[in-house]
Amino acid sequence: MRENRRFDEIRFINIETDFVKHPEGSVLISLGDTKVLCNATIENKVPPFLKGEGSGWVTAEYSMLPRATESRNIREAAKGKLGGRTQEIQRLIGRSLRSVVDLEKLGERSIWIDCDVIQADGGTRTAAITGGFVAMIIALHKLVENNELKEIPVRHYLAAISVGVVDGKVVLDLESKEDFNADTDMNIAGTNHGEFVEIQGTGEKHPFSKKEFYEMLDLAAKGLADLTKAQSEVLSDIFPSTKGMSDNE
Amino acid sequence: MRENRRFDEIRFINIETDFVKHPEGSVLISLGDTKVLCNATIENKVPPFLKGEGSGWVTAEYSMLPRATESRNIREAAKGKLGGRTQEIQRLIGRSLRSVVDLEKLGERSIWIDCDVIQADGGTRTAAITGGFVAMIIALHKLVENNELKEIPVRHYLAAISVGVVDGKVVLDLESKEDFNADTDMNIAGTNHGEFVEIQGTGEKHPFSKKEFYEMLDLAAKGLADLTKAQSEVLSDIFPSTKGMSDNE
Amino acid sequence: MRENRRFDEIRFINIETDFVKHPEGSVLISLGDTKVLCNATIENKVPPFLKGEGSGWVTAEYSMLPRATESRNIREAAKGKLGGRTQEIQRLIGRSLRSVVDLEKLGERSIWIDCDVIQADGGTRTAAITGGFVAMIIALHKLVENNELKEIPVRHYLAAISVGVVDGKVVLDLESKEDFNADTDMNIAGTNHGEFVEIQGTGEKHPFSKKEFYEMLDLAAKGLADLTKAQSEVLSDIFPSTKGMSDNE
Amino acid sequence: MRENRRFDEIRFINIETDFVKHPEGSVLISLGDTKVLCNATIENKVPPFLKGEGSGWVTAEYSMLPRATESRNIREAAKGKLGGRTQEIQRLIGRSLRSVVDLEKLGERSIWIDCDVIQADGGTRTAAITGGFVAMIIALHKLVENNELKEIPVRHYLAAISVGVVDGKVVLDLESKEDFNADTDMNIAGTNHGEFVEIQGTGEKHPFSKKEFYEMLDLAAKGLADLTKAQSEVLSDIFPSTKGMSDNE
Amino acid sequence: MRENRRFDEIRFINIETDFVKHPEGSVLISLGDTKVLCNATIENKVPPFLKGEGSGWVTAEYSMLPRATESRNIREAAKGKLGGRTQEIQRLIGRSLRSVVDLEKLGERSIWIDCDVIQADGGTRTAAITGGFVAMIIALHKLVENNELKEIPVRHYLAAISVGVVDGKVVLDLESKEDFNADTDMNIAGTNHGEFVEIQGTGEKHPFSKKEFYEMLDLAAKGLADLTKAQSEVLSDIFPSTKGMSDNE
Amino acid sequence: MRENRRFDEIRFINIETDFVKHPEGSVLISLGDTKVLCNATIENKVPPFLKGEGSGWVTAEYSMLPRATESRNIREAAKGKLGGRTQEIQRLIGRSLRSVVDLEKLGERSIWIDCDVIQADGGTRTAAITGGFVAMIIALHKLVENNELKEIPVRHYLAAISVGVVDGKVVLDLESKEDFNADTDMNIAGTNHGEFVEIQGTGEKHPFSKKEFYEMLDLAAKGLADLTKAQSEVLSDIFPSTKGMSDNE
Repeated sequence: MRENRRFDEIRFINIETDFVKHPEGSVLISLGDTKVLCNATIENKVPPFLKGEGSGWVTAEYSMLPRATESRNIREAAKGKLGGRTQEIQRLIGRSLRSVVDLEKLGERSIWIDCDVIQADGGTRTAAITGGFVAMIIALHKLVENNELKEIPVRHYLAAISVGVVDGKVVLDLESKEDFNADTDMNIAGTNHGEFVEIQGTGEKHPFSKKEFYEMLDLAAKGLADLTKAQSEVLSDIFPSTKGMSDNE
Repeated sequence: MRENRRFDEIRFINIETDFVKHPEGSVLISLGDTKVLCNATIENKVPPFLKGEGSGWVTAEYSMLPRATESRNIREAAKGKLGGRTQEIQRLIGRSLRSVVDLEKLGERSIWIDCDVIQADGGTRTAAITGGFVAMIIALHKLVENNELKEIPVRHYLAAISVGVVDGKVVLDLESKEDFNADTDMNIAGTNHGEFVEIQGTGEKHPFSKKEFYEMLDLAAKGLADLTKAQSEVLSDIFPSTKGMSDNE
Repeated sequence: MRENRRFDEIRFINIETDFVKHPEGSVLISLGDTKVLCNATIENKVPPFLKGEGSGWVTAEYSMLPRATESRNIREAAKGKLGGRTQEIQRLIGRSLRSVVDLEKLGERSIWIDCDVIQADGGTRTAAITGGFVAMIIALHKLVENNELKEIPVRHYLAAISVGVVDGKVVLDLESKEDFNADTDMNIAGTNHGEFVEIQGTGEKHPFSKKEFYEMLDLAAKGLADLTKAQSEVLSDIFPSTKGMSDNE
Repeated sequence: MRENRRFDEIRFINIETDFVKHPEGSVLISLGDTKVLCNATIENKVPPFLKGEGSGWVTAEYSMLPRATESRNIREAAKGKLGGRTQEIQRLIGRSLRSVVDLEKLGERSIWIDCDVIQADGGTRTAAITGGFVAMIIALHKLVENNELKEIPVRHYLAAISVGVVDGKVVLDLESKEDFNADTDMNIAGTNHGEFVEIQGTGEKHPFSKKEFYEMLDLAAKGLADLTKAQSEVLSDIFPSTKGMSDNE
Repeated sequence: MRENRRFDEIRFINIETDFVKHPEGSVLISLGDTKVLCNATIENKVPPFLKGEGSGWVTAEYSMLPRATESRNIREAAKGKLGGRTQEIQRLIGRSLRSVVDLEKLGERSIWIDCDVIQADGGTRTAAITGGFVAMIIALHKLVENNELKEIPVRHYLAAISVGVVDGKVVLDLESKEDFNADTDMNIAGTNHGEFVEIQGTGEKHPFSKKEFYEMLDLAAKGLADLTKAQSEVLSDIFPSTKGMSDNE
Repeated sequence: MRENRRFDEIRFINIETDFVKHPEGSVLISLGDTKVLCNATIENKVPPFLKGEGSGWVTAEYSMLPRATESRNIREAAKGKLGGRTQEIQRLIGRSLRSVVDLEKLGERSIWIDCDVIQADGGTRTAAITGGFVAMIIALHKLVENNELKEIPVRHYLAAISVGVVDGKVVLDLESKEDFNADTDMNIAGTNHGEFVEIQGTGEKHPFSKKEFYEMLDLAAKGLADLTKAQSEVLSDIFPSTKGMSDNE
């Protein structure tokens, strides 16, 4: 039984901007006890496979500090290689963010989103997407201010949230201890218009039915609305929450 | 427009058993022009984190031969590391297969499923799951024949299929050229009872709506039924297609 | 004592072409229970050390699938490095194939020969050379058909075979169990004109005399004649078995 | 010319404890714009070379977040290896901290000090030592509270500071822009009793004289007194600033 | 045309013992301008695959100093992996030396032969075998002196030499400039009784005939006799040159 | 108690030039039983970060042969990575040597100093600096002889020495057994004019006082004078010992 929170309620969210001074965009996002530092870098070149294509790129890197977790995890730099979980997560973050960016309008630039988990209590990858989006908008806004871009080349707000089945009940935004007991666990990224860009669901302990799946999807939609609202409170001066509406309707 | 195949039709499937003589289970699965060799190995020990827990483990490795693809891809052994795509896929295969195995009944044994793509034309990861399941059942059956296990500790048939939105239309089992043009691409693993164990959907080019998602899910369910039927034609002597029914109902 | 085969007899050989659809040349060679997939790739560039030299290059890669062998061997991609045995073998294959190619006539192109052992029962490196040669000729023939080359720039047929001393007796084409018991083990690559391009003999268990060596060499010459005959049956339409004769005489 | 700060003045220092909830000791140290997160982990085992020796161990790891710096630096985990600078620094931190710990009284335990640079503006390695010391004391104090140790097995306060020759003038606690222009750069770790445990001085641009060296040493001693005073303000409840006095006198 | 040396003559050989003080056996071998430092280490354990088998092991490592060669070659430690050539060579040295050692009489011990090329002018791998043998005998003799072994468990003298076809002529012991121009190049390891343990011949530029091969073998036999004679001059006090005779006859 | 040597005396030093024939400068330096081979290479290009800057570069690599030490140490090439100690040392050697070179006068050239420890008995890194300096001057002199440079672009003689506190007594040039027992250990590089370029002191076992530090510095200055005198005896024909005087005074 979840304490102090309804099954369809996200944890307390805080988005602190300019946490670090050097990056073009810097955000420390807290979702309950999960804290992820998201730094955006603009680079005036693109990866080799895009050279001369007139298109930009968005990519993400994800890492956990050794003591973000309850017991110490060994640094991947010390091991000499990135683990499968890390690669899976950073590919997810990158794909999600790319899905709302107009890469041609971005031009031959790369955006790096570095997501470093300072403290982990479930939902680090979804917090990374939600915070990374804010850092990206702030960085792009600087390009607009410097007249390097005419407008922010982003079509929608984007956030991500987890949803799962715990003790037979569908719940939103799982903490670590819920995550551990979940029969089914799903991470969903979507826009402020109720559309989805990434769905990754796994029923490792129990297969799930279409009905359960529909319930989870609805709950996720609610969570995404709450998160994009929190984003727009931070960003509304530079990126209106009505942004992207016209693209779809 | 897809030639010679309806939008809801899977490609011609062939499951050839005993393709290689040494493995405990060996299957060459062809789905259209996609060919994956799936070899199952039984090992009488478990990974360190399971030692003494009385539980078994299932894990998968995935690799593409350099010329499985139209242009030569560099071997990961030559690069000295596994790429993110490979790790993402082999984690997906492993999780999917584990979801239908009763790990406690398996006992302190590991099952390795090696999936080597001989020829690629879209859907290699889903073919690997579908073929890997058959190789796993054959290997487990040998343990039963040798009286090392009383019965095959597997709860359901398991298969996987891709589904996507191509040119605005939802289609089943994408070939390479469709995959390349897809707005949305989803890989779904599920059982012979219409339940799902893994859903990975990505709308990198276009966000997708709940309605599109529901259509994809229904199409996937049809594809999974076709695939588990093909599996049971090969396996019915040793693993009945009614298997697992009672677990759920 | 060897069953069903004379001491000077090679195993049943089968050369299946076009096993995989993408490569410029694709061959599945079986020599008894040893099966190696040999895929040839033509690339329109050369390694850095040959740039601007007006000469081409031939190189080979060799790998064993994890369950090509009786017990599972760990993937080199997972280990993060190529083992010494693999490197030794792929250098041998590359050197052998280069020895019969006129690299200047080939022009600034590279030929990659990927040799993947599907099933191992002794003699995988020699089968890789014998099958790799056929895949290379098929790939080069496509360049001739496309008018990119005037003729196939290869001087001789090339094959390879093992020979050894088992229980004090010199025998041709060792299977795994013979290989394991051999006092002396030799791999020899040579042409259809009775000449040799690589000899690698090792007497790790017993030094060998000049007399034994002469016997092994004669037996190898017989095996090479049988193998190049089998190659020419597959290739005679595009590459005559009299090829290269005039170069030597 | 340095603004707002005398040549012998350290930057504004802030030591925030319990920044992260999981570690046994957690400190975010800020020295001007340099911010380093120092987390201490207690582990109940020692490295292989100390097994059964009845002695403990202290080790440190150091890393910079990609955008701790003005331009993005590539993650060492992505490169697959630790750079020389990183290894040099983490060895320095480890040696410095070990020098004040009574390893035998610590018993067969390891202390890991993870130092992650959130924001860099010169002096990250010395801030890591100064903050790491505080995190270590907090972690050791928990062992005392849990009756696992009778007292904190540390002989002195320990801090570290940089000192250098900039534009011909000896200055304390160099910021990035000063560091860049320094003729000579020295990092010194020492105790609250005016003794030194590590001195690393480099005159890459200009050799330095004994006289300059003496001046730098005196300035460092002043800086170390200021820093250990700041540490003791945070720690005085659990670790008295008179600690260690009797060991030396 | 070779200067100052007949076609069947080896270069001036010098074997300096005790070049380094720490190893159990240390030899600096010079063959003309090729200088290889061969150090033997005795270790009282065996590799995992031999544990409890009652048998010992001999293994070799080979490395070139960066400026052993005319232009600087990059260190393999800096590259982070051993090249194929290095692995091929160290496997050759190890197999050759093992072939003359009675591993059961050696008992559960390992002998490491470290071969470091100080200066290279052709024939480094064969010099490593010839010098490594001497270092090994010296190290084993110490075990006999310390009563850890009753006698040196080695059956024969062992040396190695190169032979090749240069400008159409068969010559012994090729220097760098000859090696570069050789049509055929062969490395042969053998005993003081005219038997062979390793033959590695390659005709990368030209296939070679049986007749040429016979000539090379005879020349190699002469070279091996000269080399084992030089070894026995150094070792005769501790290891008689008649050693092993009775084993064969 | 030190035998046969006063506390302020360096070990017997020998500098043998032209030890290896290929390098532009080659020196085997012996300091007591410590022997380091230092080879200098001139390369007509600079690292990427200096391209087009009109400035040269000096860099060093350091390695120990496996049996330079009493027990065999594993090759870093075999481990696949450079250890922290190695990297720390080669950075120290590189910085020290760069400090006396006028990189602009050197022009767009790199100097590699390869330091390979043949035999270790304490002080290998300082011997590497002392010997590496001589190898570098010899190599630069060749550029002057070939009219590629007008003069040797080096400002001072440079050497390095260790000094430490052993059994409470400050001593110069520690051997292995002294090093092992030292409370404090310091490596100091300096010029023939009594100035310092690198000081690395560590009091891992005991903090050290300013007074002890001053004593160590004075002892080091004496050692550096002895070493630069030995260097100038070898180099005086090509690089006068008064060199650099005028630069400073």
